[in-house]
Amino acid sequence: MKIQFNKPYKTGKELLYIEDAIERGKISGNGHYTQECHSFFEKRYGFRKCLLTTSCTDALEMAAILLDITPGDEVIMPAYTFVSTANAFVLRGATIVFCDSRSDHPNMNEELIEGLITAKTKAIVAVHYAGMACKMDAIMEIADRHGLFVVEDAAQAVDSYFVDSEGQKHPLGGIGHLGAFSFHETKNIICGEGGMLVVNDERFEKRSEIIWEKGTNRTAFFRGEVDKYGWVDIGSSFLMSELNAAFLLAQLENLDEILQKRRHIWETYDDFFASEFTAFLRPNVPDWATNNGHMYYLVCESLEKRTLALDALKSVGVGAVFHYQNLSSSKMGGGFNQAQLDQAERYTNCLFRLPLFPELDAEKVFLKLKNGLLIEKTGSCKLENNDNSRTGKPID
Amino acid sequence: MKIQFNKPYKTGKELLYIEDAIERGKISGNGHYTQECHSFFEKRYGFRKCLLTTSCTDALEMAAILLDITPGDEVIMPAYTFVSTANAFVLRGATIVFCDSRSDHPNMNEELIEGLITAKTKAIVAVHYAGMACKMDAIMEIADRHGLFVVEDAAQAVDSYFVDSEGQKHPLGGIGHLGAFSFHETKNIICGEGGMLVVNDERFEKRSEIIWEKGTNRTAFFRGEVDKYGWVDIGSSFLMSELNAAFLLAQLENLDEILQKRRHIWETYDDFFASEFTAFLRPNVPDWATNNGHMYYLVCESLEKRTLALDALKSVGVGAVFHYQNLSSSKMGGGFNQAQLDQAERYTNCLFRLPLFPELDAEKVFLKLKNGLLIEKTGSCKLENNDNSRTGKPID
Repeated sequence: MKIQFNKPYKTGKELLYIEDAIERGKISGNGHYTQECHSFFEKRYGFRKCLLTTSCTDALEMAAILLDITPGDEVIMPAYTFVSTANAFVLRGATIVFCDSRSDHPNMNEELIEGLITAKTKAIVAVHYAGMACKMDAIMEIADRHGLFVVEDAAQAVDSYFVDSEGQKHPLGGIGHLGAFSFHETKNIICGEGGMLVVNDERFEKRSEIIWEKGTNRTAFFRGEVDKYGWVDIGSSFLMSELNAAFLLAQLENLDEILQKRRHIWETYDDFFASEFTAFLRPNVPDWATNNGHMYYLVCESLEKRTLALDALKSVGVGAVFHYQNLSSSKMGGGFNQAQLDQAERYTNCLFRLPLFPELDAEKVFLKLKNGLLIEKTGSCKLENNDNSRTGKPID
Repeated sequence: MKIQFNKPYKTGKELLYIEDAIERGKISGNGHYTQECHSFFEKRYGFRKCLLTTSCTDALEMAAILLDITPGDEVIMPAYTFVSTANAFVLRGATIVFCDSRSDHPNMNEELIEGLITAKTKAIVAVHYAGMACKMDAIMEIADRHGLFVVEDAAQAVDSYFVDSEGQKHPLGGIGHLGAFSFHETKNIICGEGGMLVVNDERFEKRSEIIWEKGTNRTAFFRGEVDKYGWVDIGSSFLMSELNAAFLLAQLENLDEILQKRRHIWETYDDFFASEFTAFLRPNVPDWATNNGHMYYLVCESLEKRTLALDALKSVGVGAVFHYQNLSSSKMGGGFNQAQLDQAERYTNCLFRLPLFPELDAEKVFLKLKNGLLIEKTGSCKLENNDNSRTGKPID
């Protein structure tokens, strides 16, 4: 029996809430369930303003519109990320300036950012890979000093935190001027396709509602602030359907339980790879980060070894996958004329992800992993155990 | 008891299909239900290629990207339309050239189009108001002669047709180079928030899949046409969640019944206003159009009279609404420096819509309408019956 890479988790209340949304006679956007989801995030994390969107991509597009990105503006972001991080800004005409990853973590290397800033730089996009915080104090300080905006691509980072030097925890998505979350079915908290924009800077609050509502002042109209509404700005149909918002609320009500289950599997994986199969570099949880159990990934020594590992796992029915093609060497990204980004290239070639979802049967998967990796070790792979005792020790 | 303006219709299978989508372990986009919906449209209407999107707005945005709209390009469209018709093209930098409506129908006056064409014109967007066809033979002929693209904004036009001079019926959305549909909860066939792009011109077929999949060649990859996929174009997260696609399929399976119910209510309204309350201009169904029962609207003689009518209907609990602010006189539209568009202004000020949904209790609504309009007639309204015997007779 195959162990799939991902299985969308159902708490049990999703269908009831969807049925209720239908009974309420409102399945388009911004109804009861949307409001409940907004409140959940605003209360739990102290986010200033939340707006559910049809995807994290769309939340990033809203951010690019809010920042008034125009052709020629430069936006700094990691090369090792999902295409939408870049496309959202390219759609507004931005020139993307790719930043390399850290050697001990796929997150962007904050020490390289300042060297990429020019007079044309408008924003930095910090992507919290695997839900683990970029070094946000350093990034915010650089942005502040150069008058830049910071957008957090917190697609994978629900309920994860940056821990500052005094031990204070700051929820990811709530630190930059704007933040974007994903509720795609592969994430911790899901609703099929969906996302959310977080507005942390007061200056963007009013306009964010207008852009969300197709460039109209409809929301202000329904609050009685204007006497008729019309076309006042650019914008799109960013609202999430109540069907998806209802699904999402059921998930949010079980957020602690879902994350606890995921973290348990993550830790079991990590123990296993620390003790039994030490040929891979395990994930590093930086001192300033928390772990929301979003993703368990391993880093091989080379593309060849990753291919062997993935083939071996496939042969025993474990749905392991690799992801993210270094955007700076893609057809589109190449147009931005970047330097070689060694770490981004390394994670592109060497990283792979293991199945991780709340219902995963850990015993079954470890048995299969053992079999798969034994094939690899005794067969053509020739991976040797290395001293990988310290979590996150960089290869180079 | 109030009669609401709209009530989302449920065929009864929506929740079962949503539950099945969840059981299939796929609630993001492009799964079983998405494919079934695509097939439905491709088979029933002969559309070349269909792609479900998160909204009709997003389908129009895909069209603007596919047409390579760049700053300076001019796009001709009606001023009397939803903001998204314009915003989708403005987001790509287009200059909008607004066309006035016909005097006998809110659709754009095709006789005015040619006078608006310049060397910069790239496309004409034909919006089929109330699901009734624009004069597509004339529009296609003009576009052909000037080498322009035609996008059909068929948001309201599911299962509606253009009838050519030989009596042949052509499904709306399938005539222009590209077409866009809406499945917003106010439409005939719904899924909360949702839409669909129709690609009728072979030249756009391959790229449409790439733009749909966030600018990646992921779809070609899964068909085995390329050996890895990456970032090859601009694009966005246009895919509709399977939750919404499942809802949509349940609706599509009942399309004939839903439309028959809506048409029946439409015709009952029309008989009522032809015989009992003739102070309003009733909808005109042009010779070249069919009626999909999407919308029953009336046109008053003036803004003042419409305000009185809406107030009167409100007082008896009938949820009648007006809509569409002439885009050319909006804050955003004004930036495009348009001539006065008298008919667009007239429909903006004088048109209103009556409740129309499959479960509407016609007897109840007519009793209320009578009471409401009697208040209006005997009270402050002073509307006089006019000779409105010919459907769609223009006021001027």
